[in-house]
Amino acid sequence: MATVEDILMSKGPDIIVADPSTTVHEATVLMCEANVGAVVIKEQNEARGIFTERDLLRRVVVPGRNPDQIELREVMTSPVRSVSLGADVRECREIFTREHLRHLAVVEEGALLGMISLRDVLAVEVAEDEQLLQDR
Amino acid sequence: MATVEDILMSKGPDIIVADPSTTVHEATVLMCEANVGAVVIKEQNEARGIFTERDLLRRVVVPGRNPDQIELREVMTSPVRSVSLGADVRECREIFTREHLRHLAVVEEGALLGMISLRDVLAVEVAEDEQLLQDR
Repeated sequence: MATVEDILMSKGPDIIVADPSTTVHEATVLMCEANVGAVVIKEQNEARGIFTERDLLRRVVVPGRNPDQIELREVMTSPVRSVSLGADVRECREIFTREHLRHLAVVEEGALLGMISLRDVLAVEVAEDEQLLQDR
Repeated sequence: MATVEDILMSKGPDIIVADPSTTVHEATVLMCEANVGAVVIKEQNEARGIFTERDLLRRVVVPGRNPDQIELREVMTSPVRSVSLGADVRECREIFTREHLRHLAVVEEGALLGMISLRDVLAVEVAEDEQLLQDR
């Protein structure tokens, strides 16, 4: 079964990073350009939190706050839920479902190596289906 | 293999609906309360479009528009990508991956029966894994 390491190898290091003092609006521009739903907040080389489209909805737009005047440190989700490189697709799937998450940080010995999303797990399964069909 | 109908039966009719004239801010409150990432825009009993967290990011927050002054008709994605009740989990997974979507409308003979999300497909797979483990 594919592991988190396999997923990172195939999709490449497409992690989007920001500082705690980045404004929400600046972060949304980064997310939009990269076509991703989350940005990781780093400070002193450690992942301090994550800011997602869901956080934007709940903590900024619904309360009617101005995205230009809020820093990520105020609205990020912290700490970030993480997995190790060796975790397999089934474990990730369970975490996404049970904890109602869409993104997981990949961390080894304190170092942030990447992010995997619910969509990445699905893409692995699609690739496995195709391989099965070819092998028939 | 589980079908779209099986998914709808197990999760129930949890579809969130709004009018084209609903403001973005009103829609985000509905999405927040229901803990979902999308709302379907209905007019004359037909699904006209869908408004998702991604649309909020790209079409409202990034361009700096005021969520209280925009109606969903201006920023929804239309038409809605749909599947039929008989589609199976593998087909949905392929559509989500290939078309980079997170939600699909379930439509039979023009009638909107529900929505399924990328997360719903993952939840089916987790349930199948658990069943496999129990059967061993």
